[in-house]
Amino acid sequence: MKYSKLVGKTVRDAPTDAVFDSHKLLYKGGFIRESTAGRYYFLPLGWRVHEKIKAIIKNEMDKTGAQEMIVPVLHPLHLWQETNRTQSAGFELMTIKDGREFQFALGGTAEEMFVDLVRNLKLSYRDLPFNIYQFSTKFRDEIRARGGLLRVREFVMKDAYSFDRNDKEFNKVYEQMAKTYSAIFSRLGLTTTKVEADNGYIGGEYCHEFQVESAIGEGRFFVSENGKYSAHEDVAKFKRDNKNIDEPLKPYKTVEAIRGTTMEDGVKLHGLPLWQQMKCVMFFNQNQQPITNNQQLILAVIRGDYDVNETKLAHLVGAYHLRHATVEEIHSIGSEPGFISPVGLKGKVKIVGDISLRTVRNMYGGVNKKHLDSLNMNIDRDFTVDIEGDIAMAQPGFLAEDGKSKLVEKRGIEVGNIFQLGYHYTKLMKGANFIDEDGKEKPYYMGCYGIGIGRTLAAIVEKFHDEKGIIWPKAVAPYDVHVVEVKSREYGVKRKAEEICGQLEKAGIEVLWDDRENVSPGVKFADADLIGIPWRAVVSAKTGEKVELKRRNAAEARMVSVAELVSLLSC
Amino acid sequence: MKYSKLVGKTVRDAPTDAVFDSHKLLYKGGFIRESTAGRYYFLPLGWRVHEKIKAIIKNEMDKTGAQEMIVPVLHPLHLWQETNRTQSAGFELMTIKDGREFQFALGGTAEEMFVDLVRNLKLSYRDLPFNIYQFSTKFRDEIRARGGLLRVREFVMKDAYSFDRNDKEFNKVYEQMAKTYSAIFSRLGLTTTKVEADNGYIGGEYCHEFQVESAIGEGRFFVSENGKYSAHEDVAKFKRDNKNIDEPLKPYKTVEAIRGTTMEDGVKLHGLPLWQQMKCVMFFNQNQQPITNNQQLILAVIRGDYDVNETKLAHLVGAYHLRHATVEEIHSIGSEPGFISPVGLKGKVKIVGDISLRTVRNMYGGVNKKHLDSLNMNIDRDFTVDIEGDIAMAQPGFLAEDGKSKLVEKRGIEVGNIFQLGYHYTKLMKGANFIDEDGKEKPYYMGCYGIGIGRTLAAIVEKFHDEKGIIWPKAVAPYDVHVVEVKSREYGVKRKAEEICGQLEKAGIEVLWDDRENVSPGVKFADADLIGIPWRAVVSAKTGEKVELKRRNAAEARMVSVAELVSLLSC
Repeated sequence: MKYSKLVGKTVRDAPTDAVFDSHKLLYKGGFIRESTAGRYYFLPLGWRVHEKIKAIIKNEMDKTGAQEMIVPVLHPLHLWQETNRTQSAGFELMTIKDGREFQFALGGTAEEMFVDLVRNLKLSYRDLPFNIYQFSTKFRDEIRARGGLLRVREFVMKDAYSFDRNDKEFNKVYEQMAKTYSAIFSRLGLTTTKVEADNGYIGGEYCHEFQVESAIGEGRFFVSENGKYSAHEDVAKFKRDNKNIDEPLKPYKTVEAIRGTTMEDGVKLHGLPLWQQMKCVMFFNQNQQPITNNQQLILAVIRGDYDVNETKLAHLVGAYHLRHATVEEIHSIGSEPGFISPVGLKGKVKIVGDISLRTVRNMYGGVNKKHLDSLNMNIDRDFTVDIEGDIAMAQPGFLAEDGKSKLVEKRGIEVGNIFQLGYHYTKLMKGANFIDEDGKEKPYYMGCYGIGIGRTLAAIVEKFHDEKGIIWPKAVAPYDVHVVEVKSREYGVKRKAEEICGQLEKAGIEVLWDDRENVSPGVKFADADLIGIPWRAVVSAKTGEKVELKRRNAAEARMVSVAELVSLLSC
Repeated sequence: MKYSKLVGKTVRDAPTDAVFDSHKLLYKGGFIRESTAGRYYFLPLGWRVHEKIKAIIKNEMDKTGAQEMIVPVLHPLHLWQETNRTQSAGFELMTIKDGREFQFALGGTAEEMFVDLVRNLKLSYRDLPFNIYQFSTKFRDEIRARGGLLRVREFVMKDAYSFDRNDKEFNKVYEQMAKTYSAIFSRLGLTTTKVEADNGYIGGEYCHEFQVESAIGEGRFFVSENGKYSAHEDVAKFKRDNKNIDEPLKPYKTVEAIRGTTMEDGVKLHGLPLWQQMKCVMFFNQNQQPITNNQQLILAVIRGDYDVNETKLAHLVGAYHLRHATVEEIHSIGSEPGFISPVGLKGKVKIVGDISLRTVRNMYGGVNKKHLDSLNMNIDRDFTVDIEGDIAMAQPGFLAEDGKSKLVEKRGIEVGNIFQLGYHYTKLMKGANFIDEDGKEKPYYMGCYGIGIGRTLAAIVEKFHDEKGIIWPKAVAPYDVHVVEVKSREYGVKRKAEEICGQLEKAGIEVLWDDRENVSPGVKFADADLIGIPWRAVVSAKTGEKVELKRRNAAEARMVSVAELVSLLSC
């Protein structure tokens, strides 16, 4: 490919709103351009990388026996209604009507579409297991699209859906997909950490994310020092340490409390440790159809030195969206902001207690009245909770659940995820059954598996670049070698460059040939560094029958013959 | 691939609404399934064919130096407003708002998106020419989606856009693309006819369609017997034969005419030939902003034995949509249905005359009053037209324009098209310029080039099938060979089939292996014929170390060794 004719050449400046290196470099190198916020053009260079990533994913998926296919972009909205996802999809779902007023969703994922297909195929146990996947554009109407390809509103995703007879068969597929994902990312040059994660809008009981460690990553996760545990902050478990658990229960009493409404105000007034204070946070469940109408208010109760993890809380109470309760809502059930207590609120709100309430005795806190506090509150004796569980946010230094190793905080870019779906979709969607060996209809046991191509591409750039530009791993480089002709007009240079490029291409090597005549060698070298093709081969009046070959990230160049170059690049 | 695990197996019956063979066979063979009308799933078998077609198109496009890239699916609607295509797009444009009330179009084609990208790249003549293309889903809200993949609402299209300095440079690209298209379709096994066509909603001055001749095709076109001319009925030109052109002009007169409103009624009443009658058809121009408000009514005037070609008429008057005028509208300008005449309507309607009015003298017809006719009407003497041009529909047997050869009618499936766009978009879209050698900004001269993959796939099936099923050309067959094991449970059959499939796959041959145990040989053979893989290799207890090999469309089978099979399939 002649660089003079390439659409999308290097430019000096990145957009002013570009913060991340991947965004800046992909823009400046001529790989991408933004259309509207979060919707990108992939220019020819960028598309070559995109398609190489795709080919590696396809190759590894096919090795497992997964079968590629495609579903329509416009999903009938009634399918999303069958599974209640018009309200629960975590991303903002975009919908559209056709000329006949038929409603469609622009797919953000495609569980319903695959299940609808499969249920209509009327299969039997003999057809199982199978795993079907597609590469297709996904739409997520994110409020904030930022960071180049890291958070977008439109992107190509590989999404796979497995259909099994039961959980036992499924477990094999899930493990296989986890291995396949590691293999895919490894071929792309990325080291990933598989972390337990929140299944969010997808449903099912458990899932894992593949995170590429990166300081700029949006995902925060924890890894235990012994490496045995890793989990996203949304779901990370930890061992609660016992505090004054041997202290005898003291009598409950109320005391005047002229104080502010923060936890610190409580500590200061009573001169007691933060962990002994009871933290009470009121939430409002925004589900359109709560399980019971009088339980839209949810009181989370936890040890004072812990924070409430809203994701864990939402799952525990079956909510799609939680928000903090307003002052009016707190007053409406006879309580008082900053002085909330579970004592006396039973039946008025749904009380959810963290298991940490059993690691402390004689807690102190409010009594649902302004300027009145209680001392020596104890679970079971002074109050009970409606649900007791894990609603605490892990923090660095906390012990992992096995009690053996401390949690270390990491940030990462989520490049893939795998979900157990179980019967979540096949029980909600009527007739999503196969005929089992005993002749009975049984629902499919499912999993799903996603990789976002654009974000993976950006993660590669985040990992592989220096101050001069990108340093593509060989497997995904847009071209194998960047041939730079220096001073094209000097005798024979252009002819020689053309001959060399011809020989390389004949040998199946992908060549980007900087054939520009009016551009200085310095600019050409800088462009080559910015674009980041793994090898640079300079052809000049001085290089004779050889080329001056340099690795993108090496300091030294060396002279090699064209034959040597071919054999080096072919391996 | 084991057939037992393939998603999408053969079924006995096609959907009751399936009319075309391609629809029936692709459904029954397990290649496609409909989601909602005109929106299809491609099952794994179908997707393999789809992707093979795509790869051939890509290969031929890349050979020409065209560069693949991708544009977002959601196009900012303001771009479509820049070119007036929100009203003029011939297909029904679907639009959607995001959560911030920003409007998008679901692209039916992508001229605006490519021009918007290119104008922002700020290029110079040195970057030209170039041709950029994508494979992407197109949306057309067709009122009637029918015929399987032949007319759909959503499909993957290869659309390319060329940018040139001027028409001279462009002409080379246009010719090159025409050759490339013939080469692509030829590799796909299709013989195409390149026909002049209507540019419809695309704009520009000329374009050509690639038609695969087929009795079930929606496109009707004409080819001259000497093969020198081919054109779609929308634009087909023909030579008007002179009738009574030497007859002296007779005096214009009006006569009582108690008759019905058809042409035949006129012939019967006056006893004169149909060709001498003047055919007057009133239309209404539905453009939202007509050029002048009082010219929304358009009177088409033509020789009585010709029909008005509405596409030609619309182009001549610059209308996007025409409809027949209502009785009220005809009355409103003082005329009368069935008795319309251009005489006296000047200034009240836009009068468009076909050039055939100059091949007849002393015409007869109405006088804009009920039961009154005129005789001896002659153009220029008795009336003048606002626009004179070609608004007649060609018919089989008419002479081609060169007067040498008769037109023959054909029907075809349009599988591709190429358009000269000229400055149509770059003049409407501000700043769509490059810097020319003289330092001045000049608009790009453009062309565009489309191929619908799904329709091409259906056209292949229409051409290559028999009563038993599909007969795929080798280049696009989902697999190279269909290995059928017969009576799997007989001693060694399954083991031998597995071994043979392993050897074939190791040699790079794509194998579909019918490994089903509970299915009779007859059913397996019928399935193989339906699916249509070019070669069938039977493994049974009788085949020993060999396989029984048969071409899909041959009657005879022969015994070959695995080594022979490999060498045969590898070439």
